Amino acid sequence: MLEPALYLIPVTLGDTPIDQVLPAYNRQVVLGIRYFIVENVRSARRFLKNVEPSIDIDSLHFSELNQHTDRRLIDAYLDPLRQGEAVGIISEAGCPAVADPGADVVALAQCASLRVVPLVGPSSIILSVMASGFNGQSFAFHGYLPIDEGQRIQRLKQLEARVYSEDQTQLFIETPYRNLKMMQTLLQVLRPSTHLSLAADITCPDESIHTRTVSEWKRLLSAARSDEDRQRLVPRCPAIFLIYK
Amino acid sequence: MLEPALYLIPVTLGDTPIDQVLPAYNRQVVLGIRYFIVENVRSARRFLKNVEPSIDIDSLHFSELNQHTDRRLIDAYLDPLRQGEAVGIISEAGCPAVADPGADVVALAQCASLRVVPLVGPSSIILSVMASGFNGQSFAFHGYLPIDEGQRIQRLKQLEARVYSEDQTQLFIETPYRNLKMMQTLLQVLRPSTHLSLAADITCPDESIHTRTVSEWKRLLSAARSDEDRQRLVPRCPAIFLIYK
Repeated sequence: MLEPALYLIPVTLGDTPIDQVLPAYNRQVVLGIRYFIVENVRSARRFLKNVEPSIDIDSLHFSELNQHTDRRLIDAYLDPLRQGEAVGIISEAGCPAVADPGADVVALAQCASLRVVPLVGPSSIILSVMASGFNGQSFAFHGYLPIDEGQRIQRLKQLEARVYSEDQTQLFIETPYRNLKMMQTLLQVLRPSTHLSLAADITCPDESIHTRTVSEWKRLLSAARSDEDRQRLVPRCPAIFLIYK
Repeated sequence: MLEPALYLIPVTLGDTPIDQVLPAYNRQVVLGIRYFIVENVRSARRFLKNVEPSIDIDSLHFSELNQHTDRRLIDAYLDPLRQGEAVGIISEAGCPAVADPGADVVALAQCASLRVVPLVGPSSIILSVMASGFNGQSFAFHGYLPIDEGQRIQRLKQLEARVYSEDQTQLFIETPYRNLKMMQTLLQVLRPSTHLSLAADITCPDESIHTRTVSEWKRLLSAARSDEDRQRLVPRCPAIFLIYK
């Protein structure tokens, strides 16, 4: 019998086998839960089928939580937990409540003194800090940067200044099809000696994590002769950008 | 046959069963490696025996990397990889190269364009962000804060200001026996309405992750009548402190 709690259930990043990135224990926990809060019911069902092909999906309850969900409904999603049933939040990719709406439910659970149990899974943030060689004793993740070009450049200069003044690694993300544009902006704005790491497709078959100075990236990109070559350097897939001195 | 690379191998946080926090795939990788870079040979051997009791420890090579290691020796630790052999870095706790000397080796590997592959494991940083209910789209980990009381208070005020000005979750750690002292400083320095999460013994049997406002923590702590009661609220064990609005 699973202890009643709000379990935070990570999923794979992309089409990676479950055993590669999730502990066996997560499977046990998942199979003990009947109430799920999910960003997308269809992909959550697919994940559960993947965890256990014989799972009886129809006996499970799904509550959808995304940007369209009325915030006033969310509190009721925790009613089963108040009545002694385990509830799980399943992420769309990676760890729930890090870069998705799950955090709102967790905040409500904490506010109501309900037990919250996070499970281990792939976090592209931590994996990229590990593999970059950058400072892991001090780092900041900023999500997406401003879209407006002027604001973005200003923000990048501020983050780079913090690399030097606080000895802090800076991380941010971009929509995959804009990765190359982001890289070009970075190479324009940052100092030539600043280190830039691009961690793409983490835990997936095409994983690539490369740390170079800004001037080395410039050299590599200007030597690329075709779009294909440029895409090999800056893939059009989920990626994290990291900067450090 | 394992692809030659520098594998970053997380371990459990405390005496947790391996299956609870490490994917089965990590075991496969570990068993394919003969060259290890470790912070402490004895605990690395214990971890490997735990992963596979029948492992032939004497056939493995260990290079020690800690604050006493001469930085000039480290580059040679990567020689087996240059010769086509997989090399592993084993952490003392949690994920290597996040809050330990492993990052120096990773930086050397990246600089030499050697492949670096991070494996999934328990990160108290990510797990505590998930379970706090705080903003996971923007957060900063700061390691230990200054020891000097005046500097520490100044730093805390700076971090709290950033919570409000940048909508950013702030994380830091303390030596376990000083957790209560840290909590008392926090309750003195921070605004009553600021939220403070204490995530202790993450993934271990006594795991506790509680988010309260500063004024609620004050009330709880002043109601505690004995040292035992206070320790129940602020355990003397590995913990992360998080603040957010």
